[in-house]
Formats: sequence, structure tokens, C-alpha cells
Amino acid sequence: MTSPYSLDYTVALCVVITLPAHSSWGDWCWLASGSSGEGGASKPFQKVIRANIGDAHAMGQRPITFIRQVLSCITNTDLLEKGDFPDDVKDRAREILCGCGGGSVGSYSASQGIEHIRRHVAEYIAKRDGHPARWQDICLSAGASTAIKNCLQLFCKEIDGKKSGVMIPIPQYPLYSASLAEYGLEQVGYYLDEECNWGLSTQELERSLQEAQQTCNVRALVVINPGNPTGQVLTRENIEQVIKFAHKHKLFIFADEVYQDNVYAEGSAFHSFKKVLVELGAEYSSQELASFMTISKGYMGECGLRGGWVELVNMLPEVQAQLYKCMSAMLCPSVLGQAVVDCVAKPPAPGEPSYDLWIKEKTDILTSLKDRAKLIAETFNTFEGFKCNVVQGAMYAFPRITLPPKAIQAAKEKNMAPDVFYAFRLLEETGVCIVPGSGFGQAPGTFHFRTTILPQPDLLNTMLENFRNFHKKFTQEYA
Amino acid sequence: MTSPYSLDYTVALCVVITLPAHSSWGDWCWLASGSSGEGGASKPFQKVIRANIGDAHAMGQRPITFIRQVLSCITNTDLLEKGDFPDDVKDRAREILCGCGGGSVGSYSASQGIEHIRRHVAEYIAKRDGHPARWQDICLSAGASTAIKNCLQLFCKEIDGKKSGVMIPIPQYPLYSASLAEYGLEQVGYYLDEECNWGLSTQELERSLQEAQQTCNVRALVVINPGNPTGQVLTRENIEQVIKFAHKHKLFIFADEVYQDNVYAEGSAFHSFKKVLVELGAEYSSQELASFMTISKGYMGECGLRGGWVELVNMLPEVQAQLYKCMSAMLCPSVLGQAVVDCVAKPPAPGEPSYDLWIKEKTDILTSLKDRAKLIAETFNTFEGFKCNVVQGAMYAFPRITLPPKAIQAAKEKNMAPDVFYAFRLLEETGVCIVPGSGFGQAPGTFHFRTTILPQPDLLNTMLENFRNFHKKFTQEYA
Repeated sequence: MTSPYSLDYTVALCVVITLPAHSSWGDWCWLASGSSGEGGASKPFQKVIRANIGDAHAMGQRPITFIRQVLSCITNTDLLEKGDFPDDVKDRAREILCGCGGGSVGSYSASQGIEHIRRHVAEYIAKRDGHPARWQDICLSAGASTAIKNCLQLFCKEIDGKKSGVMIPIPQYPLYSASLAEYGLEQVGYYLDEECNWGLSTQELERSLQEAQQTCNVRALVVINPGNPTGQVLTRENIEQVIKFAHKHKLFIFADEVYQDNVYAEGSAFHSFKKVLVELGAEYSSQELASFMTISKGYMGECGLRGGWVELVNMLPEVQAQLYKCMSAMLCPSVLGQAVVDCVAKPPAPGEPSYDLWIKEKTDILTSLKDRAKLIAETFNTFEGFKCNVVQGAMYAFPRITLPPKAIQAAKEKNMAPDVFYAFRLLEETGVCIVPGSGFGQAPGTFHFRTTILPQPDLLNTMLENFRNFHKKFTQEYA
Repeated sequence: MTSPYSLDYTVALCVVITLPAHSSWGDWCWLASGSSGEGGASKPFQKVIRANIGDAHAMGQRPITFIRQVLSCITNTDLLEKGDFPDDVKDRAREILCGCGGGSVGSYSASQGIEHIRRHVAEYIAKRDGHPARWQDICLSAGASTAIKNCLQLFCKEIDGKKSGVMIPIPQYPLYSASLAEYGLEQVGYYLDEECNWGLSTQELERSLQEAQQTCNVRALVVINPGNPTGQVLTRENIEQVIKFAHKHKLFIFADEVYQDNVYAEGSAFHSFKKVLVELGAEYSSQELASFMTISKGYMGECGLRGGWVELVNMLPEVQAQLYKCMSAMLCPSVLGQAVVDCVAKPPAPGEPSYDLWIKEKTDILTSLKDRAKLIAETFNTFEGFKCNVVQGAMYAFPRITLPPKAIQAAKEKNMAPDVFYAFRLLEETGVCIVPGSGFGQAPGTFHFRTTILPQPDLLNTMLENFRNFHKKFTQEYA
């Protein structure tokens, strides 16, 4: 049982604040504080703004109507008769129920998910990439995290007394560092290039690999695109370089593509690793790849329903069979999460009754996220000592901050990392909750933090205003 | 990545049968066969009877109305205004939504679950046992399996170069053997006493422990009560003996109590380990215990929705904090699974509009299960060479079968365990799918199988009739 610093931090950050009981943030905080958030000192803010986690609905985003109508019909089949729902909602509900044992979402599904939903996912991928996908290579999961962990576990065997190593970006999403520690895998960090909008440089990949090969067998490479926490969207050329690098060194590629719908910047586009790999030609036809997707991000933001999938590309059949068998010990992912996957993979089609509303809701959400991505980076760049790359995609900004030497000294006296000290102060004084860069990893001597772009526009404006005032005061205090 | 034989078998058993596409059994079978179940040779039966898995809804059990009405209202909040639901359904839905960030089930909850649901579980346990339960010691999970695995993982550290050992019953539910293998823990089997209706003998526990202590540090003891696959319900006296044994040897107790609502036999009653432990007095006040519960079994049978909980009793606070932190890497269990937990922990109360229907549905299901438990054991005991203990509880019968020497020889020629050979033949000839005893472990030289008691009464009668004819034919063939 190992606990990476990143998780420690998330917990630690929660201890200090005090909120009414029964708020879900109160729950979150209980983790470390051992209380339900009742009592405690009063704070100079009305409420905490949870910009620390990619949880769109918690920040006020409305669910997509079609998804929720389908869910209500499959959980309560009386509504198929009595309810006033569009025909395509009822048809979809009936189709999902047909795939369930006894026609109930209360039955176990196959461990890899309901077959016709896996087929819809394969069709979705084929349409996205312009290349076929096999439904047998799609495995549904309870969010992307479970699938990522299951695949990482494939590498946990030591070879010739040496641990296996997995290359992960720095900064990275802490699920990776936590899972590697859990499975006894070596964390092989490669730095993203902040000066090139957090792109991947082949030179840095080679450096990192060669250094690590002295102590472990490097066997896999994780790429998060669009990036978390860094918000970059890789160019096609960069993806080609990464695939060639992985192929040259026989590395399995983990393509964390859960933000594939979240691309905002002019000139940026999402290119799946699968598509680029196929288009690199026959030479790469044995390159192994797992691509992960979720219902928690994108425009749907259904975090609490726990749904996702992995597409396994060129995996050795015997390894895939083993992976599937291990998954079966855990029975099956939530059938309702699978149902949301179905709605996302096969949304209402033009001409169907729910189509117009679906498109409107989806477009509104993504347009608003695009505006917020732009606003947040531009605003941060007006703060003294802040430098924020363009948020090309995903749901986060990860600005670099220059802290006054006196602030660094003050942090040291409190035995805290300077960025943690800054984040605590921000939280204590404004209620804005962000995650310091130490939680994700950052180049030595640099300081960052991650904020989501998820607060709804009015709240985001308030948050940025409070942030600006805090930062001005903080900077003056330690000038 | 290790795959216990039990899982191999479950997969293997699926290969041979062929069914229409889009059936969930077809999905299940695809696992091993690599096809969707299309095509293939014709079989001498109309459909497969899935008596191999405790999946009540798949076998025709109807969901509980209150649960499904609440689920439809929380997924589609329009129904709170427009829908025609009893007031207690709407109240419950609103209460659950109040515990969700942004009032949406699409938000992440705290990793240990929504606070007010944990409080309801604590109240449920307090009422069940007559002793208080702390809500902070309740952790919600995606089915019991996740919680069991998380707790097992606490023991994975080697001490003085010796692995940790976990005592599990033989026969056992294969989740345990699979998880122990996954975490590098030693499986320390103790035999249940078939002659004493699968009870636990302290002598056998001592024998097993002493033998294992030569090779590993035995640190925990798993008890499944009511039993899976064995269907026994432990007496209070037997539970006291087990607790004393664990206490004497400083073993952490895993009480798998997921079938606590499934007690059928006259004179049998469910006693929770927690209750008995508390009533044993102060001497045992540091005895560590984890008790697991699920929404997949009982009268609700909501397997596909993935909900459950664990109550941690007397766990060291620092260990518990570590456990909770590790769980947080996986974000949270399905909020909809948590909502079902809420309905189960706090069902409609007398006088509330949904109470009468709730009680009727619950009672009807449990009464019917009781009838089927009796029918199945009595019927098996009329088969030549069958000996079936009373099914006191849970959802399974695990009869011992005497196979003719020629059948054992025929199995050997096919390189199969005799009980596997028998189960295959049964499946091929009747479509009745059971799991051979080898999947759970059994005393050397004995043969068993597990069948669920879940097929609805008419189907169960058909199944038993087909089974009887098959067995007669099989016995004659190998006489």
C-alpha cells in the first residue's frame, strides 16, 4: 500500500476548510479531517469553488436530456408504457433492455460489457477514425480508471529480477503514479515541454528511456491527449513521432484519450493514436496500443455513473484473453454506466426526434467550455508572475507561477512546498480550491497549479476576480 | 496475472454452447469462444438455464418497485415534477440528489460514498444488531467484490521475507482465490464440514493454521455466512468459536455476509459477526473485522447496478485512513449503486405510501426462494448417488455426487476432472448450466456441483425434471 504524494496532497488540502454538513465537499473533506465538516472556524468566503476536480455537473453543468431520459426508462420500465418520451428514447431503452438478462438492468452483463453496446462503440470509433474497429477489442469499464489499472497490471511481472517500468508524462494525472506504486512498477517520468505548449519531444523521451533502462525493463509509454493537467492537444506530427519512438523500443502505448471531445483552440484537432497508427502503414501493424475513453468528461460529464471503455489494438490474443479473464473476477461494470456509453457512442441521428436537442445541448456545452478555456488563460496571463499556455483542450489550465523569494521562505518555515503554501492560502482566503503542481509533478524549481475550467461563466468570473485580488495581496505581502 | 482454475473453468464451460446473438449468455460465452455465439451446431434443448451464477433478475425475478421508481426520478429529475410517483419516492429522490454535487447523480461522490447514505447504513446496522455503528466506518463500494479486494490488499506486504496468508473456506467463492493470487497472498484453505451441514470446526481451523504457519504469516480469516457455494447458515455458537479462534491467533476477520437476507431453514437465523463480537464483551474489543454487504443478493438482486458496502470494526485508525486514501484513487463507486444501497438500508417505513408494496414484494421473493431452496435439496436427495445438505440460506445448493467408476474413467480419457465432465455432459444434453465443485474446491476424491436456486418455480421444475432424466441416463450409460 503506497500513497504517492499527489494523493496525500489532495487529502491535505481538504483538511483546513470547514463547511456545512451534508455538502458533498464536506464528504470529500471528511477523508482527512475525520469530521463531517461540522463546526470549525468561520471563513472569509461564502462557499468553496471546487476548481480542483474535473466534475462538470458539480459545477452546474446540466445533464444531456436524451441520456437521462433513456436512463429513467431502463431503470423504471413502467415509463415505457406510461411515460411521455420521444420514440427514439423508448426505442433505445428497449434495445438496451434486450441486451440485459431477463430484460433487467439489474442483471450482470458479460464482464466486457453488453455485446451490442460494444458494437456501437466499435462503429463510433470506425466513424471517428475512418478505419474499422473490432467490437471484440472493445471492453467496457467503470470509468476509464478501472480499464487503465487493469491494463497496467499486465506489466507487473518482474523479468530477470528487474521491475518493469512505465513511462508517464510529468506533469501527469495522479492515477498513473498511484497505480504504478500499487503494482510495484517503476515510474519513468518524461518531461513535457512547457515552452512548446506541453508537447512531447522525442529527445526527452529518449533521455528518459535510456536513463531508466539502467534500473528497469521499460515496457510501456503513457500519453494523455488532450493533456491532463496541461491542456495541450498533440499535433498529428507529434503523435507520429511518439508512435515511432514506441515502436522502435517495443513499448506498449497507453493512449489516455478521455478528453477527445474537448478540443477548443483554433487549429487544434483531436487525432486518435489508433488512426495515426493505422495510417503509418504496415510496418506498424504489430504496435500494441490501448486507447481509453470515459463518459465522465467530454460534453456529458457523467462522472458519478462510472462508464468508459478501452479499445485494444494489436494486443496478442493470448494476452487479451488473459486480461478479459482477470476482469471477469470483478463480474461486470455498472450496466447503467454502459447504457450511457451506448448513448454517447450512438447518439440520436439526424431526423430522429431527440436529435436537435442533443446537438443543441452538446454544442452549447462545448462552446461555453471553449469560451471559458480562452478566458481563463487570458486572465491568468494578466496576473503578475503568471504564465499560462493556451488551453487547447481537456478541462484544465496549468499556469506557471513565479513566487516571491519571501513567500518561498515563508512556505519553508511552515515545512510546505511553495506551491502548496500558495494553494492553501488561496483556499483559506477565497474558497477557491485548486491543486498545486506538486500533485502532478513539475520541473524542479518551477511552480504551477491546476484549475479546472468548469465553473459556470458567472462563477468563473467571480473566481478569477477573487483570485486576482488574492494574488495581488499575496504578492504585495511577500514583496 | 494469475488465473485460478475456478475461473478457467467458468470460461471453459461456456465454450461449448451456442446461442442466438444478443443474448447476454451469448455475450458471456463470447469470452472464451471468440465468437458472438452465432452459428454452430444445433443442440437438443431450447435454451440454456443459467443456474451457474447468482443473477436473480436474469432468471426472471422482478425488481423492487420503490428502488426503480427512485432511480428513475434521480436520473431524470423532470419526473419529480411531471411523474406520477408516491410522495415517499419523490422525497427519497430529492434527499439523494441533495447529497450530490450540483444536485446531479452525474457528479463524483466522496470516495467512501455519500455521507447521508453512509449514515443510513450505520442506522440499518444498529437496528439489525442492537448495537451502534459509526457512519465513518461504513464505506460504500461497487458491489461487495471491490471492497473485499481493497481490504485483502491491505495484507499484501511480506514480513521477514514471508508472504502473508489468508484463510479461506473450501469450498469457497472464487473471488477469494483469484484475489489472493493477484495480490501474491498465500491461500490457506480450511475445509468446511460437509457432515455437519458445512459448519466450521475449530479443530480444522487450528490444523489449517498450524500447517500454513510453516510457510507464511497467516494474518486473516475469511468466513462466508450464509455460505457460498454451500448454503449453510452458521449458528451463533459456531460464530463465537470462530471469533475466539481469530482473536487467539490475531487474525483479521473478513465476514462475507452478502446473503444476510437469505435465510430459509426452520431454526436458522442470521447472526452478524459484528453483533456476536460486541456481545462477547470487552476482551474482544480490539478484534478487527470487516463485514461486507451487497445490493446484488438478498431480495433486491440488483447485480448490474453495482452497489455494496463494508463496515470496518476496530480497524486501526491509521490503517483505515490508508485504506480510504487508496480507494480515493478510483474516484467513487457508482452513485446509482449508492442510491440503491440507500433504499435497502432505509426502506419505506410503515405508514409511508410505498411501504405495503415494498413488504409484499420483498416477502414474496424471499418466500419463493425459501420454497425453491427446499424443493431443490429434497429433489436432489431422490437422485441416485446424490447427497444434498439442507439449503439453510444464500442462493445455492452444493450436492455431493457419487460418479460411477466408468464415468470417472471416461473423464480421465478426455483429460477432464470427473465433475467437470459431468457438468459438460449435463449442459450439452439439457442446457442446464451449473458449476462443478472443482471451481470452488472440495475434499479430495469427492465430487460436487453448485446450482443456484434462482430459476423461477416453473423453470426450476423443468430444470429438475431434465436433470433427473439426464442423471438416470448418465448413470445407466456408465453403470
